[in-house]
Amino acid sequence: MLYSQLIGKTKKEAPKDEISKSAQLLIRGGFIQKEISGVYAFLPLGYKVLEKIIQVIREEMKAIGGQEILLGSLQNAETWKKTDRWDDNVVDVWFKTKFKNGQETGLAITHEEPLTQIMTQYIQSYKDLPIYAFQFQTKFRNEARPKGGLLRTREFIMKDLYTFDKTEKDLEVSYEKAKSAYIKIFDRLGIGDKTYVTFASGGFFSKYSHEFQTVSETGEDTIYINKEKKIGVNKEVYTDEVLRDIGLNRDSMQEVGAIEVGNIFKLGTKFSDALGLTYTNEAGNKKPVIMGSYGIGPARSMAAIVELLNDENGILWPENIAPFKLHLIGLNMEDAESEKKAVSLYEKLKKAGSEVLFDDRKDVTAGEKFADADLIGCPYRIVVSKKLGDKIEIKKRNEKESKVISEIELLSH
Amino acid sequence: MLYSQLIGKTKKEAPKDEISKSAQLLIRGGFIQKEISGVYAFLPLGYKVLEKIIQVIREEMKAIGGQEILLGSLQNAETWKKTDRWDDNVVDVWFKTKFKNGQETGLAITHEEPLTQIMTQYIQSYKDLPIYAFQFQTKFRNEARPKGGLLRTREFIMKDLYTFDKTEKDLEVSYEKAKSAYIKIFDRLGIGDKTYVTFASGGFFSKYSHEFQTVSETGEDTIYINKEKKIGVNKEVYTDEVLRDIGLNRDSMQEVGAIEVGNIFKLGTKFSDALGLTYTNEAGNKKPVIMGSYGIGPARSMAAIVELLNDENGILWPENIAPFKLHLIGLNMEDAESEKKAVSLYEKLKKAGSEVLFDDRKDVTAGEKFADADLIGCPYRIVVSKKLGDKIEIKKRNEKESKVISEIELLSH
Repeated sequence: MLYSQLIGKTKKEAPKDEISKSAQLLIRGGFIQKEISGVYAFLPLGYKVLEKIIQVIREEMKAIGGQEILLGSLQNAETWKKTDRWDDNVVDVWFKTKFKNGQETGLAITHEEPLTQIMTQYIQSYKDLPIYAFQFQTKFRNEARPKGGLLRTREFIMKDLYTFDKTEKDLEVSYEKAKSAYIKIFDRLGIGDKTYVTFASGGFFSKYSHEFQTVSETGEDTIYINKEKKIGVNKEVYTDEVLRDIGLNRDSMQEVGAIEVGNIFKLGTKFSDALGLTYTNEAGNKKPVIMGSYGIGPARSMAAIVELLNDENGILWPENIAPFKLHLIGLNMEDAESEKKAVSLYEKLKKAGSEVLFDDRKDVTAGEKFADADLIGCPYRIVVSKKLGDKIEIKKRNEKESKVISEIELLSH
Repeated sequence: MLYSQLIGKTKKEAPKDEISKSAQLLIRGGFIQKEISGVYAFLPLGYKVLEKIIQVIREEMKAIGGQEILLGSLQNAETWKKTDRWDDNVVDVWFKTKFKNGQETGLAITHEEPLTQIMTQYIQSYKDLPIYAFQFQTKFRNEARPKGGLLRTREFIMKDLYTFDKTEKDLEVSYEKAKSAYIKIFDRLGIGDKTYVTFASGGFFSKYSHEFQTVSETGEDTIYINKEKKIGVNKEVYTDEVLRDIGLNRDSMQEVGAIEVGNIFKLGTKFSDALGLTYTNEAGNKKPVIMGSYGIGPARSMAAIVELLNDENGILWPENIAPFKLHLIGLNMEDAESEKKAVSLYEKLKKAGSEVLFDDRKDVTAGEKFADADLIGCPYRIVVSKKLGDKIEIKKRNEKESKVISEIELLSH
């Protein structure tokens, strides 16, 4: 991609109302732009990262047998009344509106209800279970105070996985599969070492749920972590009884701020009971299906990654979700020969299958180009210039020292 | 994929209120399910087709230099007031709702306004132009009478491309690029021969816009086509003056029903004037940016494909968008040896990189399995059975005759 043609150039300043580091860097880098409070547009750089995060999540969901679906945003009020989640006094983040015929509808805050409803058509027998469905679909939540840029928005794509099982024991298996998949996902996203499987309140069906909490000073959650055992406990359930339950003690725990990047939850029969999702078991008896639900917000994960992986000059993207692996800087582009050399290298790199962002601008100083490369944060910076002659300078974003190598060395990388 | 585990099995009957052929077949085949009037869920088979259609469109958008972005669904009313498209008396398909602070918002009916607004930050100079942005993002339209299944819904993913140019002449170039890309897209989707570039009314800026109309008895539009020249004229502009303009005459035209699968439109300065999107030209003067907009509905395209490509037994998917290329049927699956053979072939085909739907069910007759395969419509049906011994039967969905071949022949395909 030619930087000169890219939609979304870097900015010197972020808007003053954006106080989170990730929002500042993502806006200044040209990744996202605020449309209204709590609603962000993804520009090409931001969309590339988002898509890569989504692809990592998708692969791990498929690896545990997840089948990808896509449900609607407009909700059937009648279905939600059956689970008592339609009333604004029960759920206070609905965006509601009406069809032309006067019938009420709302924008999906989550998708347990419609999916359970749909599954009543496709689950009949024990032979149909277990079954896992997931999607990447927008959730809408009428937050009074959106904040932290992509960390808390009024609309966001969520990956939601739902599991359907015969028994509690089977749910346990599904739950552990999902938990393992989540651990792999955050590892692949480059924040695995800072992300803690964290005990949180469980609701009616099970004592605990688990959150995936990424330790960050700027996080709005407070959790207590045991670094050695790599376990966290959310403040809301941080009691002596719970610690005893999990086999931890207060002395080994450390209070930290954290960003909730995912959560997994045993739903039990809450939705299957309300909506009549049953199966006939081996003995011929009707039983309610046992469900679980599992969420990750790809955009919130993106923000968490930026909160963690940055320095005073900009973002440090992990290699597998960087918008481009290589940031090629052409210096002295006013000089025909220098330009030719840079363009030729760009074409060779693209032909070799590399993802390259090529700063081909002519009216910009070397200093500005270096600053922009640091801000955008691609893992490798490559410089071609008059001074370097036939050689090329390569520097990793997270290292200080650069190396001068030949074009052949670079291309054989 | 094992058919026994697939979410969304075939149904004998479609709901009675679904009158369009495509909705009936897609619901009976387990591709989609209606959630509420005008809102459909995509089950795994349907989502696979949708994703493949999206990928074809994405590739052709990138081929002409389109940059992928993603804008929000929740709209800023203030922006739409500036173009006079907020008032329900002007645009009567808005879904409107409110933020917690009482501020009005609405669900994107299209995205000209927010994108033009965003581009004011990134287009300043003639050097920034031309620039093309596209996205796949949901549009919401409060249709009084949704109909035809996926053909007219209340929410649907749309691919919308927007072009930004310096001059009308440049817009002409962008417009022709988009037109060529659209022709390629519908060719790749298998409905190119039936899809006509069709003259339609153009609005303020240009005399005509163009629709991509797929000829179908069941289409709700009426157009007049010249088969030889592969040109269409929408009924709404079918006058002697227009025919003269285009160089056609009534004798060579044929009236047909058609489904509008895409449209391309010269916007001119309508949005850039209203929202202040200008650039500084080579002479240092401020000029309004000249825009174009170009839409395709992937799900409507999916429905149009099914309307065209079906027979009395089901769907006939074109190879490059079929949910699976191969539909493997294991017969006599109760017999351990037959089952072993079928499973082994399934594993080999998967290993060879084939997309295979494997009907591994034990409690289903051969007749039912064949009927389901025809209904779902994968391009190749492969049968393994006791009777066939070491051989395999292969049949194309659109041919009557099957062939008996060896496993080696199949795998070397």
